Amino acid sequence: MRQTFDEHADPSFGSKHLPLIRQELRRQGLDGFLIPHEDEHQNEYLPDANERLSWTTGFTGSAGAAVVFSDKAAVFVDGRYTLQVKAQVDPALFDARDLVQGGVPLYLQETGKPGQIIGYDPRLHSPDALEGLKAAAAKAGAVLKPVDENPVDIAWSKERPAQPQAAILPHPVRYSGEESGSKRSRVGAVLRDAGAEAAVLTAPSSIAWLFNVRGGDVIRSPLPLGQAILRADGTAELFLDPVKVTEDLPAFLGNQVALAPPEALPAALAALKGRKVLVDPSQSSAWYFDTLAAAGADVVRGADPCALPRACKNAVEIAGAKAAHVRDGAALTKFLYWLGGEAQSALPDEVEVVSRLEGLREATGALKDLSFDTIAGAGPNGAVVHYRPTLKTNRRLEPGQLLLVDSGAQYLDGTTDVTRTVAFGEPSPEMRERFTLVLKGHIALARVRFPEGVTGSSLDALARMALWERGLDFDHGTGHGVGSYLGVHEGPHRIAKAPNLIALRPGMIVSNEPGYYKTGAYGIRIENLQYVTPAAPIAGGERPMLGFETLTLAPIDRTLIEPTLLEAAERAWLNAYHARVLNEIGPLLDAPERAWLVKAAAAI
Amino acid sequence: MRQTFDEHADPSFGSKHLPLIRQELRRQGLDGFLIPHEDEHQNEYLPDANERLSWTTGFTGSAGAAVVFSDKAAVFVDGRYTLQVKAQVDPALFDARDLVQGGVPLYLQETGKPGQIIGYDPRLHSPDALEGLKAAAAKAGAVLKPVDENPVDIAWSKERPAQPQAAILPHPVRYSGEESGSKRSRVGAVLRDAGAEAAVLTAPSSIAWLFNVRGGDVIRSPLPLGQAILRADGTAELFLDPVKVTEDLPAFLGNQVALAPPEALPAALAALKGRKVLVDPSQSSAWYFDTLAAAGADVVRGADPCALPRACKNAVEIAGAKAAHVRDGAALTKFLYWLGGEAQSALPDEVEVVSRLEGLREATGALKDLSFDTIAGAGPNGAVVHYRPTLKTNRRLEPGQLLLVDSGAQYLDGTTDVTRTVAFGEPSPEMRERFTLVLKGHIALARVRFPEGVTGSSLDALARMALWERGLDFDHGTGHGVGSYLGVHEGPHRIAKAPNLIALRPGMIVSNEPGYYKTGAYGIRIENLQYVTPAAPIAGGERPMLGFETLTLAPIDRTLIEPTLLEAAERAWLNAYHARVLNEIGPLLDAPERAWLVKAAAAI
Repeated sequence: MRQTFDEHADPSFGSKHLPLIRQELRRQGLDGFLIPHEDEHQNEYLPDANERLSWTTGFTGSAGAAVVFSDKAAVFVDGRYTLQVKAQVDPALFDARDLVQGGVPLYLQETGKPGQIIGYDPRLHSPDALEGLKAAAAKAGAVLKPVDENPVDIAWSKERPAQPQAAILPHPVRYSGEESGSKRSRVGAVLRDAGAEAAVLTAPSSIAWLFNVRGGDVIRSPLPLGQAILRADGTAELFLDPVKVTEDLPAFLGNQVALAPPEALPAALAALKGRKVLVDPSQSSAWYFDTLAAAGADVVRGADPCALPRACKNAVEIAGAKAAHVRDGAALTKFLYWLGGEAQSALPDEVEVVSRLEGLREATGALKDLSFDTIAGAGPNGAVVHYRPTLKTNRRLEPGQLLLVDSGAQYLDGTTDVTRTVAFGEPSPEMRERFTLVLKGHIALARVRFPEGVTGSSLDALARMALWERGLDFDHGTGHGVGSYLGVHEGPHRIAKAPNLIALRPGMIVSNEPGYYKTGAYGIRIENLQYVTPAAPIAGGERPMLGFETLTLAPIDRTLIEPTLLEAAERAWLNAYHARVLNEIGPLLDAPERAWLVKAAAAI
Repeated sequence: MRQTFDEHADPSFGSKHLPLIRQELRRQGLDGFLIPHEDEHQNEYLPDANERLSWTTGFTGSAGAAVVFSDKAAVFVDGRYTLQVKAQVDPALFDARDLVQGGVPLYLQETGKPGQIIGYDPRLHSPDALEGLKAAAAKAGAVLKPVDENPVDIAWSKERPAQPQAAILPHPVRYSGEESGSKRSRVGAVLRDAGAEAAVLTAPSSIAWLFNVRGGDVIRSPLPLGQAILRADGTAELFLDPVKVTEDLPAFLGNQVALAPPEALPAALAALKGRKVLVDPSQSSAWYFDTLAAAGADVVRGADPCALPRACKNAVEIAGAKAAHVRDGAALTKFLYWLGGEAQSALPDEVEVVSRLEGLREATGALKDLSFDTIAGAGPNGAVVHYRPTLKTNRRLEPGQLLLVDSGAQYLDGTTDVTRTVAFGEPSPEMRERFTLVLKGHIALARVRFPEGVTGSSLDALARMALWERGLDFDHGTGHGVGSYLGVHEGPHRIAKAPNLIALRPGMIVSNEPGYYKTGAYGIRIENLQYVTPAAPIAGGERPMLGFETLTLAPIDRTLIEPTLLEAAERAWLNAYHARVLNEIGPLLDAPERAWLVKAAAAI
C-alpha cells in the first residue's frame, strides 16, 4: 500500500514542541515567531522535513499558519479545516483562528505589543504577504525581524527527518511532447518581451516542466526540489543537490544547462548585479527579492514565465492524458463495479475502500504514485471536504449512506483526479435531489461554449446555479488546473468565485467538481477532468468558440439521479457521456464487469 | 430640447489645433505630450472646457487618449469606437491605435526616441497609469516630465469655454435618506479601520453623496466639481468655487463642514504633513499623490471610502428609485405605444424618435435632465454600440428594420437607464432568434439567486450563455451600477467579464443589458435596472440568498420573441414581468395606450 492511515501528528505536539521553540526564541531574543505552512519551495505538498506547522501544532491540513509568542500562540486554518483543527490541536495552547478573515495580520495587530520583536524566516514568506504582516505588526507597535536560523528547525533538529534526495530522471519527449531547448527558447522570448534578461525559477513544477525532468522529493507528485536561473537566450543554470543528479542527467540536459549545487545559488544571484531579473512574488519567497536587491539586480515582478506554457498542454500531452484516463477509468470502473455489487452487502469500511481502489490502480502496472491521498468518506465523513481516512476516523458503510471517493493517480503519460459518489442501499429523496442539482452544475460546466478571453471566474456560477436556486451552495472552488505527470493542483487558471485573470486557453486541463455537503450526514461531489479545446463550428455562429472535452471516463451513479429534474439537453449530455464510457472502457473489462457497466451506463 | 444633434468636433480640428499645440511644445522644450480623455476630476463626462482630447483630435467618444509628437501623433480608442474614430479624426495627422491592446504605453515604447522629453499634466493621470507610461517611455530611452501649464490649455486659451459654475443645491434627506453627518461618521469609522486619519475625496459623485448636495457642472448628471478632505472624526473641508455656493448651503452643511475655495486646496494638503491620508489611486490623479508626498503626509492607497456606502442604496433611495421608474416607465410606455402604432406607418427618423421620447419625459414635469444622450439607432446604426444620432448620421426607419433606443432620465428621486429594441414591420427569423437569445440572457440574470460574497464577474456568463451556445457574443459589459440622482454609471460593482472584487450587496442598483450586434444590419439590447435584495426564503434552502428585483417597467417587444426558444421558467418570468408592467403602468395611461399595453403585455 502506498497510502497509510496513521496520524502523523497529534494534539500532544503542542505541549511537547512549544517549549523547545520558546527556548530558542529566548536565545535569539525574539518575542514571537511566524510559522507558515509553506516551505522554501512554496509548494502545496511538503516533504516531511518541512512540515514545520504540523510539528509545532499537530495540525496536518494543506494550508494554515501559526504564531508563537512567549506566553500565547495561535493556529490559523480556513473554512475547510475548522473541524479538523479542533481534533488535532490542543486548544489550551493555541487559539484557533480564521486564516482568511483577518488571518495572521489581524492577530498581529490585535495581539502584538509595542516594542516586541517578532521573527520570521524570509525563505518561507512571499514578499507580498510579508508587506501585509509588517504593516499589521507596525499597527501594534511591534517589528518583524528576519532570522538567519529558523527557531523551529533548531528546536526540531534532533528528530527532524532529512531533506529528500530522490533521483531526478529525464522525462522523455514521447511524454513531454517538446524538447527542453525548445521550451527554453520560447520562455526566453517571453522574458525578452517582459524586458527581462533572466528569470529566477523556484516553483518545482516549473523546473520539472522546463527541463523535462521528474523527481520524487515530494510525495504524490514527481517534483524535483531545486531552483533555476533561465536567461533570455535560453541557457540556464539548474541548482540541484548533486546526490539527486542521476548519471545520464547532464547529457540529457545538454550543454546549454549548467548544473550547480544549491550552495552556489547565492553567488549566482549576486552575479545578476545590474541585470533585469524576473521573479514571481507568488512563487518565490522574500529571500530571493532581498538577496537580488542586495546584489544590485533590477528585479522585475511578474508571473512565473513557465506557468502559462506549462498549463497549455501540447498534442502529445493531451494524447497521454487521454491514454492515462482510459487506463485509470478502467481501474475506477472495476472499483465502481465492486462498490455497486459485492460491497453493497459486504459493507466495507473506508480503509478497505481505499485499499481496493489502490489495488486496482496498482494492477494496471503503470501506476507511479497516487496523485493525492484518496478521500473515501462514508456517511457523515463525506461532508468533511478535505477528509482523509485514518485508523481513528475510519467508518464502516451502512445501508442508506453515501460514499464519496475522490482519488487520482500519477502515470508517466498523465495525472488523474476523479470523484464519484455512490449510494449504499436506498438513497433518500433529498440525497437524490441534491445529487441531481450537483450533476446539473457539472453538466452546465461540461457543455458550456465560450469565446476566447473568458476566465474560470466567469464560468464558476454555471456549476452553482442549480444549487443557488434552491438556497444551497458549496464552499470550495469548482475547478483547478492539473499537470501532465506533475502536480494535481496546478495554476495559473482556476474555476472559482475568486477572481482569476488567466483566460482559459486550448490545452488547459481543469477539474469540474461541484459538490454539496450536509454536515453530520453526507457529502456529494461529481468530478471529471476536462480540457479546453476549440468548439466544433456552430451553424450561424460568428465567433470562434472554445469548449471542454471530458477526459475522465467512469459511470455516474444513476440510482442517485432524479430524472425529472434534468432538462432535455442535460439528459442528452449524460447519455452521450455514458455511451462514451461504455464504448471506451467496456472493452477493458471482464464479462461480469462489462455486463454491469452496460446497465450502469444505460440511457436515462 | 435638451439633447442636440450637432457634431461638437470634426476632422478639421487636427489640422487647426495641432500646430498650436506643437508651437507650445516647442516653447516648453517638449518633444511630445500625452493627452488623456480624463480631466482633473477623473469623471466619465467632462465639462466642455475639459474636452481636451476632442479639441485636439476631433474624436468625441467617452474614452480615449492622444499622443502628440513634433512630427507625428496618434489617437487611441477602444473597440466601441473603431468606426467613429475613422469618421471624426484626420488619418493623415493621427495614427488610430487600440487603447486597450498595448495602448499608449506600447506606442511610447515603439515610437519614443532616446533622449526625448515627453510632457504630461500630473492632474490628468492616475498614479498607476503613470507608472506604466513612465516604464514604457524608459524602454525607448525617453523621459516623461510633468508640466506646470498644460500645453493644450495654452494652445486652446483663446476659444476655450469657461469652467462650469452651476449652483450647488442641498439634496434633502427625503431623497437621500441619511443626513450628511451620519454618512460622515460612518465613513470616518471606515477611515479609522483603514488606519487613516483623513481621506482626500476627489470623485464628484462622492462629494455629492457624502455632503447631500447636487450641482450641475457636468451635463447629464447633477455632479458638483470640487474636492474634500474628510477626517476620521467626521469633520470635513469642502473645496468649491465660491460662485457655486448658494446662500443656504453653508447652513445646510453645518458647522462640521468648512467651505473653502479651490485655491486653498494645496495648503490644506500641505497641512496633512505627518498624517496618514487615504487617497484612491483610481479616482485621484498623480498630482494629489505628489503633493501629499512632497508635504510629508503618509499616503495610504485605498478605495474611495464613499464608493461602497454610496452604492448600497438605503430604503428611502430604493423607494425613490421605484417611484422614478414608475414615472419613467409610464413615459416610456407611451413612447412604445407610439412606436408600435402611429410610427409604424409614419416611419420617423432617429432625431424624431429622440425628440418624441424627450417630450414624453419632459411632460412628467419632474425631469431634471436626461441621464445621458439618448441612443436611437435605426437599422445598421443600432449595431454601433455607443451611437448617438447627429444630423449627419440621422436615419429614417424602414419596414423590416429594428430600432434600438437606450435612454434614461434624472429625477430628484432617482436615475433611470433603459433599453428597448422595437421591430418596424415584420422582423426576420434571424432577428427573432437573436432577440430571444438576448432575452434568455436577460432573464437568467434577472432570476438568479446567489449567496453573499458573489461578485458581478461571477454572474456575467449567465447573460451570455445562450448566445455563446450559438457562437455569438457581445462586446460590452453586462451591467453597471447606477446612482441615486447621480451618475448613470457608478461603481464600485459591475457585471462584466473583467474581474471585479466587489461583492454584490443589498441595495446596489445595477443594469442588466445583454445585447447582440450585427454590423451593417441591426442592433439588439434589452436593458432593465434591477437592485440587489435578500431573496425570499426558499423551502429546503440552507443559506441566506440574494437576488434581484427589477426596477424598470416597460413592455418588451413580443413580436421579436420566438417562444419555442424559451423554457418554461423563462416564459413564467416574462409573463410575470409583463403582468407587473400592466399593473403598475396601466393606471397611468390613457385608454388607447392602456388597450395597447394589455396586448403588448399579454402572456406568451
